[in-house]
Formats: sequence, C-alpha cells, structure tokens
Amino acid sequence: MRTTQFKVLEEVKLNNPIFIEALPGVGHVGKLAIDHVIDELEATKFVEIYSPYFPPQVLVGEGGIVEDMKNELYYLKSAGGDERDFIFLVGNCQGLNPEGQYELCGSILDFVESLGAKEFYTLGGLATGQPLEGVEDRVLGAATDEERIEMLKEADIEIRSADGGIVGASGLFLGLGRLRGMKGACLMGKTPGYFIDAEAAEAILAKLAILVKLEVSTDELEERANEIREMINKAQEMEQEMINRAMGQQQAQTQDDLRYIG
Amino acid sequence: MRTTQFKVLEEVKLNNPIFIEALPGVGHVGKLAIDHVIDELEATKFVEIYSPYFPPQVLVGEGGIVEDMKNELYYLKSAGGDERDFIFLVGNCQGLNPEGQYELCGSILDFVESLGAKEFYTLGGLATGQPLEGVEDRVLGAATDEERIEMLKEADIEIRSADGGIVGASGLFLGLGRLRGMKGACLMGKTPGYFIDAEAAEAILAKLAILVKLEVSTDELEERANEIREMINKAQEMEQEMINRAMGQQQAQTQDDLRYIG
Amino acid sequence: MRTTQFKVLEEVKLNNPIFIEALPGVGHVGKLAIDHVIDELEATKFVEIYSPYFPPQVLVGEGGIVEDMKNELYYLKSAGGDERDFIFLVGNCQGLNPEGQYELCGSILDFVESLGAKEFYTLGGLATGQPLEGVEDRVLGAATDEERIEMLKEADIEIRSADGGIVGASGLFLGLGRLRGMKGACLMGKTPGYFIDAEAAEAILAKLAILVKLEVSTDELEERANEIREMINKAQEMEQEMINRAMGQQQAQTQDDLRYIG
Amino acid sequence: MRTTQFKVLEEVKLNNPIFIEALPGVGHVGKLAIDHVIDELEATKFVEIYSPYFPPQVLVGEGGIVEDMKNELYYLKSAGGDERDFIFLVGNCQGLNPEGQYELCGSILDFVESLGAKEFYTLGGLATGQPLEGVEDRVLGAATDEERIEMLKEADIEIRSADGGIVGASGLFLGLGRLRGMKGACLMGKTPGYFIDAEAAEAILAKLAILVKLEVSTDELEERANEIREMINKAQEMEQEMINRAMGQQQAQTQDDLRYIG
Repeated sequence: MRTTQFKVLEEVKLNNPIFIEALPGVGHVGKLAIDHVIDELEATKFVEIYSPYFPPQVLVGEGGIVEDMKNELYYLKSAGGDERDFIFLVGNCQGLNPEGQYELCGSILDFVESLGAKEFYTLGGLATGQPLEGVEDRVLGAATDEERIEMLKEADIEIRSADGGIVGASGLFLGLGRLRGMKGACLMGKTPGYFIDAEAAEAILAKLAILVKLEVSTDELEERANEIREMINKAQEMEQEMINRAMGQQQAQTQDDLRYIG
Repeated sequence: MRTTQFKVLEEVKLNNPIFIEALPGVGHVGKLAIDHVIDELEATKFVEIYSPYFPPQVLVGEGGIVEDMKNELYYLKSAGGDERDFIFLVGNCQGLNPEGQYELCGSILDFVESLGAKEFYTLGGLATGQPLEGVEDRVLGAATDEERIEMLKEADIEIRSADGGIVGASGLFLGLGRLRGMKGACLMGKTPGYFIDAEAAEAILAKLAILVKLEVSTDELEERANEIREMINKAQEMEQEMINRAMGQQQAQTQDDLRYIG
Repeated sequence: MRTTQFKVLEEVKLNNPIFIEALPGVGHVGKLAIDHVIDELEATKFVEIYSPYFPPQVLVGEGGIVEDMKNELYYLKSAGGDERDFIFLVGNCQGLNPEGQYELCGSILDFVESLGAKEFYTLGGLATGQPLEGVEDRVLGAATDEERIEMLKEADIEIRSADGGIVGASGLFLGLGRLRGMKGACLMGKTPGYFIDAEAAEAILAKLAILVKLEVSTDELEERANEIREMINKAQEMEQEMINRAMGQQQAQTQDDLRYIG
Repeated sequence: MRTTQFKVLEEVKLNNPIFIEALPGVGHVGKLAIDHVIDELEATKFVEIYSPYFPPQVLVGEGGIVEDMKNELYYLKSAGGDERDFIFLVGNCQGLNPEGQYELCGSILDFVESLGAKEFYTLGGLATGQPLEGVEDRVLGAATDEERIEMLKEADIEIRSADGGIVGASGLFLGLGRLRGMKGACLMGKTPGYFIDAEAAEAILAKLAILVKLEVSTDELEERANEIREMINKAQEMEQEMINRAMGQQQAQTQDDLRYIG
C-alpha cells in the first residue's frame, strides 16, 4: 500500500451535506461526540479509508478479532431541521507525519467535495490543565471567515483570538478547506486533561444542535464515556506491560541494527 | 535502490500454501521458531528481498564476510499432514519507518498471493517483564475473523481481547492481509524479556503443529538458542563499544552539520 | 496536497529584481526587518506558497479567523536608487524536514529566476547568548563569491569565516542559488537570544540601505517589535497550556497507537 | 531539487578503476586519509554530487565564501604499480536518512560502474574508547567475499567477525555493491574517540599501499591533522554558541508552530 485508499461501501447522493470531522485528539472530545451521534441517529458507514501514513499496526478488539487502523465516513440523511445531509469523519488514528496529514486531509476534502460538501466543522479538545465543571462555557471556536465567526457568536461560542495554533486534522482541514473555497469552523471543547471527557463532548453537541440543527439525546453519553473509561482502566493495567513490549520491539530492532544475532 | 526489490532465486509452484511470517521482534520468538523449522525440515530459500526501508548498513558475519540487511522467503513442500505447502518469511530486520512497513508488507502480500497463499500466520513475542517457566500457557492469539479465533481456541490458545495493538509486521500483515480477503492469525509467545527465548519459541511450534500440522523436533531448539545466546554474549561485550561507535558516527555527522572541519 | 503550490495573485514584470529572503528564524530578525519594509514601502503581495512540508496546522489569528501556514512573495517597484525592483519572501514557517527545505528553496528559486532575479540576499539572526546594545557592529555576512564579500566589506559588514554552518532557508538559498548561477549574500543580525530583536532588525536594514539602496524609516520598528512582544507575552501566558495541549494531542495519538479505546 | 544530481565536470575514460569511498565518519579516518591522497597525488575532481538528502544548509568557509553540502568524485590515473586507475568519493556529509543513504549509494554505484569500476574499498573509523598508540594493528577489515578476505589477511589486516554492523555509507556500499556483482572490502581504522586521528589514517594508507599499490608520503599527514585540529578548536569555542543558535532556530520554528506571532 503506497497511497491512501478509499474503499467505497455505498454510492450515495447527498443534499448539500455538512462535513463534520471528529478524529481522535485531546480528550477524545470530538470522537466521543460524533461516535455518539452516529450510534444514536443510526448514521450509515459508506467509506473506509486506509493509508500508509497510519501507524503500522492493528488493534486487538473484542474477542481477539483485530481492528485495522483506519478512518471512516458516515452519512446521515436530512437529520437537521433544514433538510441538509451530514457526512461524519471518524476513526482510530490520524496521519503520523506532516506530509501524511496533508495527503490525507487533501484526499478526504476531494472526496467530500465531490459529494457536494461546501461547509464543514472540525471538532477537537483543548486541554486546560485545570478542573472544569458542567457543560456551560466549555466551547471555544475559530473559523475560516467572518460570517462563520458571527454564526459562532450567535450560538454563544467564545471566540479564540490570536493565541496559537490548531494542530493536526482539526486545524489542517480549516486551512486546506478554505483554500478550495469551502467554509468551516472548529469547535474546541475545554477539557481538564487527557481522559475521555463526556461533559466536553456534551457541550460540543449542544452547540452543534444550535449551529447545524443536529439534535441528539445525550442521556447515554455519560454511560458511553464510562464504558470507554472502564476499557481504558483495563488497558492501563496493561499499559506498563505494553510500553515494555513496545520498547522491547524497538530495542530488538535496534539490536538487530547493531549486531549480528543469527 | 529506490524501491523494494524481489530477487527470485527459483520459480516455484505451490499447493495452496500457508504463509508464515517470522521477522525479528520481541525475544526473537518467531524468528527462532521458524529459523529452526527451516533448518530441521530443510526448507528452500527462493526469494531475497531488499529495500531502501531497511537500515542503511550491513552486518559483519562469520569470517568477516558481510551480510546484507534483507528479508527472505523459503518454501517447504507438503510438510503438513494435509499436503499443503508452506512459505516462510524470515530476515534480519523489519522496515524502519511506517510507510516502509506498509510498502514492504503490501509487496510481500502481493508476492505470496500470486503463489496462491490465502491463509497466513504471523509470529511474535509478548514481553511480560516477569519470569516464566515451561512451555505451557505461553501462547496468546488474535485473528482476522471469528472462524480463525475458533481454530485458535480449539488449539488451546488463549485469546487476547481488547487490550492494545500488535505493532510492526506481525500486526500489519493481519490488517493488510484481511483487506485483500486473506485470513490469518497472530501467535504471540509470552517471554520474560528481551533475550532469545527458546521456550517461547517451542511453545509457538507446539501450537503450529496442531494448527497447520507442521511437525518438527525441538530437541535442538535449546541448543540453537544457546548458540545464539553465546553469540549475543560475545556481542554484548562489544556492545558499549558499538554504541559508542554508533554515537560517534552520528556525532561526527552532527559536527559536520554544524561546523566547518576541512 | 502532495506538492508545493504557488498561488499567483498577480502576473508581474520586474526590472532586474533583487530577491530577499526573510523567513522566520533566530530572533525573527529577518522577518521583522522585511515585514517592516513591506508595510512602510507598501510592497504588493503577488504569490502565496502552500506546501505539504509546512507544519500540519493553522494559526488562530485576530478575531478567531484562522491563518494558513504559508510563505508569501511581495514585489516592490523601483524602490532603490538604481531603479531595480525587489522580491521579498516572508511567511510564518519554514519547511519541516530536509527534503522539504530542498524542495521549497528549489521551487522558489525556479519562480524568482523566471522573473529575472539573478542576485539575492538572505536574512537571519545569530544568537550570541549575551546582552548586546545598539545597532553598531551587529551584522555578520557570508556570500556565494568573492565579489559579494567585497561588497559586504565596503558596507562595513564583518565577515564570518570558517566557523560553522548557516542552517535552514538562509543557508540553503545561498547554496542552491549559486548552483544555478545566481549570486547572493547572507546578512546575520547578532541577537542576544530568542526574543524579537528590533535593534538587530534595524542593523540589518541599515546595511540593506547601503547594499541595495532600500531606504526605509525605522521609527516605527521599535513600536512594531513592542506590539509583537505584547502579543508574545499574551501568548506565553497560554504557552504552558498550549504545550500541554500539544503533548496531549501527541499522547492521545500515542495511546491510540498502543491500545484499543473504542 | 527533488533528486540527487551529478554535475559532471569532465568526461573521463578510466582503466579498470578501483573505487574508494571516504566520506566523513568516526574520527574522520577515511576522509583524512583520502583527502591527503588527493592532495599529495594531485587527483582530479570530475564530479560534484548534490542531494536533497544532505543537510539543508551551507558551511561558512574561509573568507566568508559558503561551501555547499556535497559529495565529490576524484580520479587518479595509473597511480598504482599495476596501471589501474582510481576513483575517490569524498565530501562533507552523508545522506541524512535511510532512504537517502540507499538512494545516494545506489546512484553513485550506477555512476562508477558506468566507468568500469568492479572493485571497491570503503574506509571508516572504529572508536575503541581507549588510548591507542602507533600505526601497528590499527586496521580491521571485512569484505563481500572470501577472496577479498584472503587479500586482507595477506596484507596483515585483522578480520572482524560476527560482531555487529557497519553503519552508513561504508557498510551500505559493501551490501549494494555486492548485489550488483562488485567486490569490495571495508578497512576500519581503530581510533580512541572522536578527534581527527592522523595515526589511524596513516595505518589505513599503509594497508592501501599493500592492497592497491597506492603509494603516498605520509610526512604531511600529521601536519594536516594538526591544521584540522586547530580549525576544530576554533570551532569548538563557538560550538556552544552554535548549538544555542541551532536550538534557537528550532525553537523559533517550534514557537511558530505553536502560536501566532505576527
């Protein structure tokens, strides 16, 4: 595999779709929010994306069946009040290096543009390093243009201003999207740190309900976050072991690099 | 050399071959197991694989003759009880970077698929960081599909579940293989740490005997592991020197980067 | 986006133009100097350069509008006393890896050469690690040829000699430019450290006034530096947070690499 | 510049030439030896090699004239007692990454093979970390084949055996050269550490005199080493500054990556 590959599971026609990016990142805020939307509103997976820029590995899923490193596109028909369709980008990883990020974001924009998407949102988390309570005042925004900034303000979203970068896919989609004439905004959920933050995800979803009329019950969101937390707790017990393992593999590799062993 | 190259030493026709990956990794469990099989059952090398993604170096072998960084394919005719042939992948290194791993695994799958391989096993080690005794309960498994999980269970192999990734070639073959319709499993031999683990290799071979009817005497395995250990002990005496050397080379390079030296 | 892209905003004809590189680097000496020239003399932006070798991100600008990672070319007509035109290269980043630097510098040289540029200056800072006062004796020079060294000496510029490398775009343009028959020099403004150094920039501008007759008032330069410093102070308050954020993103990525999270 | 470029200064016909690699490495043993040979025997530079895999920078040479990062080929006619010609590979750097090393070594082998080279030597240093005196017993060898090992033994060269790798160009030329049917050996001069080691270079030259009848006075070698040492001492005074500078540049880059500065 030498280039990014789109495996199209279903050919779809969409009505003026809104593209929403929710790849994993800080606090998995965007991922948690949109995984929840996909489940609750029963969005349909129609594309799988594989890339040599993803980590060279698989994940071990439930029951020992391995899971590829991949990104996925889901569609949702006429979910908003104004009859527009949605395309969601989710997955278990982002591209590993800068060129990979550019290639992936560019390829995905080619694809969603071919389906008529002209508007998009990217979702992310913003680590504050401090405890945060509730879902109020948890979302910061930035955008490709003044009109979208006004939309964010009308939705009572605090605007980030002149204070750093938005790194990774959430940022790059904004830049590369605007370059091809698309308009978009990034919603960043403030999160204390690096655990799965259901409240930040809920806050993001509350704003999406205003901005794109994507209504979804968040009753199950805390439960979903709990499940993931448990899974992570279990994973953390094995973490030291896994770090050892990873280091071992690397060390073994290095030893192979440096000496003859047979 | 700008792309991975397959040097085919012999054109072969194989009967529904099973492909087994055993590149170096944690504890060199897979490598030790299959190097042993190749010797004992006199498998035939028929392909050498060279790649710009391998470490840019050679190894100094016995008698001062240098050894290329390479991967190799061996075949073994009708070794199992059910008359199927085998293809073994061994070598002294894996690809150095993610794109290289994808390119190598993809190219090798292209090749073995062209020989009719539809089923495969990848072998690896799993460092536990704790002392382990005996060859019982030393093998964990994961697979591309439920049918293969059942096969592993029937062979009394413990199933890993939802607990992390399988990194490097052993994992990536599972993912890329399944994407093209092949079915496979990964056998991981638990090993205390980072030395050559003959018992973990023996445990893997015991399971392969059940799964693919690949019978091989393991009497010589401990001896082989001992030889490698001695070689490594000798190598370790020189290790500090070699690390110095490697660092020196890098340092010299860096100095060249940073100042004029003539 | 798989290759560097030049977005030409205006087709221009230039008279024997002098090309001046001022990408960000140590103390932002060159960037500050030429950003000032562009503002004061009202140079015209005519090219935007985007590249997959730039950092995969956007910056958040004033009012929440995002800013792409990019390089830009400006032209200035007949600004010097001898009626020659200027091309300025500025931007908010350099290429991230060596191949990217080579590709970018080469592409930009192709472009400015097509506009008739045969002579160039690259501007940079040189960190001394010690306090420096005033604008005297603050500029060091190096060049592609003896004739240019003589020009630097006539402008009372101290010549660096046999003492290390000029890394990044400021150095690479000298090397790649000379290889295609262009002639150029690098002016390095000594700066105590890593803050925005208006005096070093002023010193550079004083030498450019002599060398290429590019006259510009520097009254506003200190003010401009102050503005940038304030912006940076504000940014530094958020820096720890941002570092946390960046680390979090990386960590999240790593966790995704190493375990199954949902 | 997207690929390695050979700038041929003179078209030459050579008689069964021996190719000798002496790029910078540990103790600059090979580089010092062959730079000396080139000067003493007045070899002629006929090719300059530029590559995007070299460090993206220039060096500041004597009098402020910059020096490109490059490799160079020199030829020497009928210097040995048996009327064979020589091709020397020298330079101020090696490729920065693995793929670059493969691409460069492969391209250079293509070129020297087109000139009729079938035999080659690679020269390097081997850091022992311990004081060494004199030029006796200072050279270790390894080779592509048994015949060459015998030649080394006849020249009283100690053979390295089964003890690690030869990293970088000196190793990779052996591997890639043999793959295309060339025969070669690596001579490694033992050196205490990381300074310029005239005695190790002299020891290498003494062995080359036997192996390929390349006779050269080494009277000036110590003097040459002294000159380089002085140059390095001068450079080391500036080293901390330069490291600061390099870090500053990187830091500035990073700051640009992480926040908005103007």
